[in-house]
Amino acid sequence: MGEARFSGAWAPPYIRPVFYLTGRMLLALAAAMLLPVAIDALTGDPNWRAFLIGSVITFACGFALIRMTRCQLSGGLTLRQAFLLTPVAWTTIALFGAIPLYISDYAQLRDSFTNALFESVSGLTTTGATVIIGLDEAPRGILLWRALLQWLGGIGIIGVAIAILPALGVGGMQLFRTESSDRSEKVMPRVREIATGIVLIYVALTVVCGLAYWLVAMPPFEALAHALTTVSTAGFSTSDVSMGRWDNATLHWIATLFMLSGAVPFVLYLRLLQGQQDALRDSQIWFLVSLLAVVIIAVAAWLIAYGGHGAADALRLAAFNVVSVVTTTGYATTDYTVWGNIMIGLFFGLMFVGGCTGSTSGGMKIFRFQVMIRMLQSQFLRLLYPRGVFPRVYAGRALPDEVIGSVVVFFSLYFICYSALTVALMAVDLDFLTSASAAVASLSNVGPGLGPIIGPAGNFATLPDAAKWLLCFGMLLGRLELFTVLILFFPQFWRG
Amino acid sequence: MGEARFSGAWAPPYIRPVFYLTGRMLLALAAAMLLPVAIDALTGDPNWRAFLIGSVITFACGFALIRMTRCQLSGGLTLRQAFLLTPVAWTTIALFGAIPLYISDYAQLRDSFTNALFESVSGLTTTGATVIIGLDEAPRGILLWRALLQWLGGIGIIGVAIAILPALGVGGMQLFRTESSDRSEKVMPRVREIATGIVLIYVALTVVCGLAYWLVAMPPFEALAHALTTVSTAGFSTSDVSMGRWDNATLHWIATLFMLSGAVPFVLYLRLLQGQQDALRDSQIWFLVSLLAVVIIAVAAWLIAYGGHGAADALRLAAFNVVSVVTTTGYATTDYTVWGNIMIGLFFGLMFVGGCTGSTSGGMKIFRFQVMIRMLQSQFLRLLYPRGVFPRVYAGRALPDEVIGSVVVFFSLYFICYSALTVALMAVDLDFLTSASAAVASLSNVGPGLGPIIGPAGNFATLPDAAKWLLCFGMLLGRLELFTVLILFFPQFWRG
Ligand SMILES: [K+]
Ligand SMILES: [K+]
Repeated sequence: MGEARFSGAWAPPYIRPVFYLTGRMLLALAAAMLLPVAIDALTGDPNWRAFLIGSVITFACGFALIRMTRCQLSGGLTLRQAFLLTPVAWTTIALFGAIPLYISDYAQLRDSFTNALFESVSGLTTTGATVIIGLDEAPRGILLWRALLQWLGGIGIIGVAIAILPALGVGGMQLFRTESSDRSEKVMPRVREIATGIVLIYVALTVVCGLAYWLVAMPPFEALAHALTTVSTAGFSTSDVSMGRWDNATLHWIATLFMLSGAVPFVLYLRLLQGQQDALRDSQIWFLVSLLAVVIIAVAAWLIAYGGHGAADALRLAAFNVVSVVTTTGYATTDYTVWGNIMIGLFFGLMFVGGCTGSTSGGMKIFRFQVMIRMLQSQFLRLLYPRGVFPRVYAGRALPDEVIGSVVVFFSLYFICYSALTVALMAVDLDFLTSASAAVASLSNVGPGLGPIIGPAGNFATLPDAAKWLLCFGMLLGRLELFTVLILFFPQFWRG
Repeated sequence: MGEARFSGAWAPPYIRPVFYLTGRMLLALAAAMLLPVAIDALTGDPNWRAFLIGSVITFACGFALIRMTRCQLSGGLTLRQAFLLTPVAWTTIALFGAIPLYISDYAQLRDSFTNALFESVSGLTTTGATVIIGLDEAPRGILLWRALLQWLGGIGIIGVAIAILPALGVGGMQLFRTESSDRSEKVMPRVREIATGIVLIYVALTVVCGLAYWLVAMPPFEALAHALTTVSTAGFSTSDVSMGRWDNATLHWIATLFMLSGAVPFVLYLRLLQGQQDALRDSQIWFLVSLLAVVIIAVAAWLIAYGGHGAADALRLAAFNVVSVVTTTGYATTDYTVWGNIMIGLFFGLMFVGGCTGSTSGGMKIFRFQVMIRMLQSQFLRLLYPRGVFPRVYAGRALPDEVIGSVVVFFSLYFICYSALTVALMAVDLDFLTSASAAVASLSNVGPGLGPIIGPAGNFATLPDAAKWLLCFGMLLGRLELFTVLILFFPQFWRG
């Protein structure tokens, strides 16, 4: 997770460093595969072999890749190399992550490479859409591997957001980087220290979350598996009915809290630990919290008035499901689509929102909505006062033009990709509600969609293979903030 | 249709000139109501009374309004007055246009003010969504009035786009205005002459269209009614099955041609008549024509391969329905939603597109897509070459920053309004497909939506009243290019 530095000159796109770094990540993935080997061996499940073979293959390929592409990285990456690294690394890891699923003895994944890859991509991108029916009886190794992929994907995307995207000028994080670099030059001296700090915080949050789950309701394995997918706002469960399996109000509130903990910028925790109280003044946090409060209260009120729920019950259901969708976790306690068309519409809209920049959650992100609101305000003011000058201020400083440009273009591009994905899904003959909700559920990395097929009570297993491949692309596209993937389709990228 | 000039100073928002001009428009509306009086009297339909009473009421109110607010307009309008004029005038005219429908003896409109208003708003905004079931047996006066409202709305929106929006800095027409003003200062000296020229062209197109309809297949009245709603890309028909009533290929091709004629900038005709051959080089036209050609060929190929149609038949069906949706006319020859999910998805996407700026068609408009594509290109180039400068060129000249800003903000605002309207419609308990398609059908002024209720073979009659009011708002919002309506909700507008 070192920062991508660029060699001064615009070097030709040698791809060796890209594959070298990808190879190193494969070694880490091979090591992670030993955990499912261990749990399967402990529980006497013969499926440990699949993970061991997968680990060996991954290690061998990673090792070969490193040997073939060994190079000096002290000069850093060029801009093109950095752009290439993100999609290449994520695609490669997702492919290798699918190997143990595909060679497993678990029929639903073994019989279809598409299914194995879908599950792996859905894991690594922290989406959490599943093709497995009968999770409650699935082998533990498989369940753990799905959870681990999500946990690795969660910390991976924080790394990308902090170390890669700002340098690329994608994702608006360049603003936060400027902010932190001249405010706390001495407090947070180097990227490596920030990285270590954030990883430790991520581990700590996961451990605390898992312990809480275990103490309140869950058996140890389920507590671990859910902790891994809660803090990463990823949403794979060990049960077909997700968190609804445990009818325990305390558990649901704990899950709500830890889903939220994964949707705030992780740099914030670091600052708080360093005693920077003003970190809490981050306007993203307050926007997110205010939005959640308003929506949760409205949904709870509606559930009390029309759903026949008691106040405590309604508040818990509303908080859990709203936080689950806005943080793009995708857990369910209940099928909220039975709450009526108004709730389907509301949750559909919430799927676009997402959490904060620099967190594990997906979606369009709170920061972009804030910039968009500033932009709309200044546009209307300009209509009223054509000769006026309206600086767009965010967090006490003027927003640079290039940040505004990139946010506004992202906004439009998101809707364009969303529409294109919806139409493409309809072209493989999915119905409108399934297509439209699957498109946003994958692009925003929420997971479950809407409707009888892929809703909170449904499953992606029955979709045609073409739809699964389209959704894999959508999940990667959304997870990597559109630009880093789409730039590869731009002819200029490959020229010169 | 005189150009809105602004008094130099930023005068307080006296609303007298706004109501004075609205009053004058009401007099014109009262005059137009005499045509249904005539046709009902000729055909011996006692409903002529409703239109006569409506005309008298409208005339009286218009006259009173003018007397109460008589003022000197030589100083022009202030910016705020101009912003107020557009929504106030359109809402007022729609309200008075609904009077003869509401006091008519026609049960479907007489019994519900909401229905009468919906039909009037749908007419004036050239949307063409109808609440009338049994159009084939509806009184002729009613049918003529619906068509007339659309025809007046069509020429009205061209007037707004040419005379009002550029001065307000809305709609991107400021670019075209600059272009025409310094290129042809002498050829088109004054707005009044342009206005007269465009009205004459509009009348001529309507007459030719009506004659063609009459010669080929339609009885005189139907030819008139459809000519009025073809050139205005508005889409009200005199039959429940729309153009599908006449199974005549030539008629469908004529309709296709004249729908297209309403979707190009009307200034273009004027330039061509003045011998400016280079007017045809307008890049909007070529973008629209290329888009249509590609889509029509694709749809026709699909209909031949999977729909069991012959080549000529497939091409006609494809051309008619694609042109109908892209020009936002909304005629149907057939229920294209039975062509399968892929076609539903495609037509859904096309509903957003719309025709050219300065035409009668709605939607987001070709020009904005072109600017958006330039913007995306330059954004990707900037990612690749952070120190590069990428002028965004349109029609051979650099796009001014404020045009880019207004287009990009419009894009996002359109999707925000669309999402909000969809959720609001779901909140009054419409299903997802009906809500999502009704939202774009009203915002883009297309007319029919998708799905069994409001699809090309359906009707808006059965929707709850709340949905009809929401859609009325959506139709006006989209027709008036969002900004001119939404600015009224902006507190600063009413201050100072
Ligand atoms: K998720
Ligand atoms: K229309």
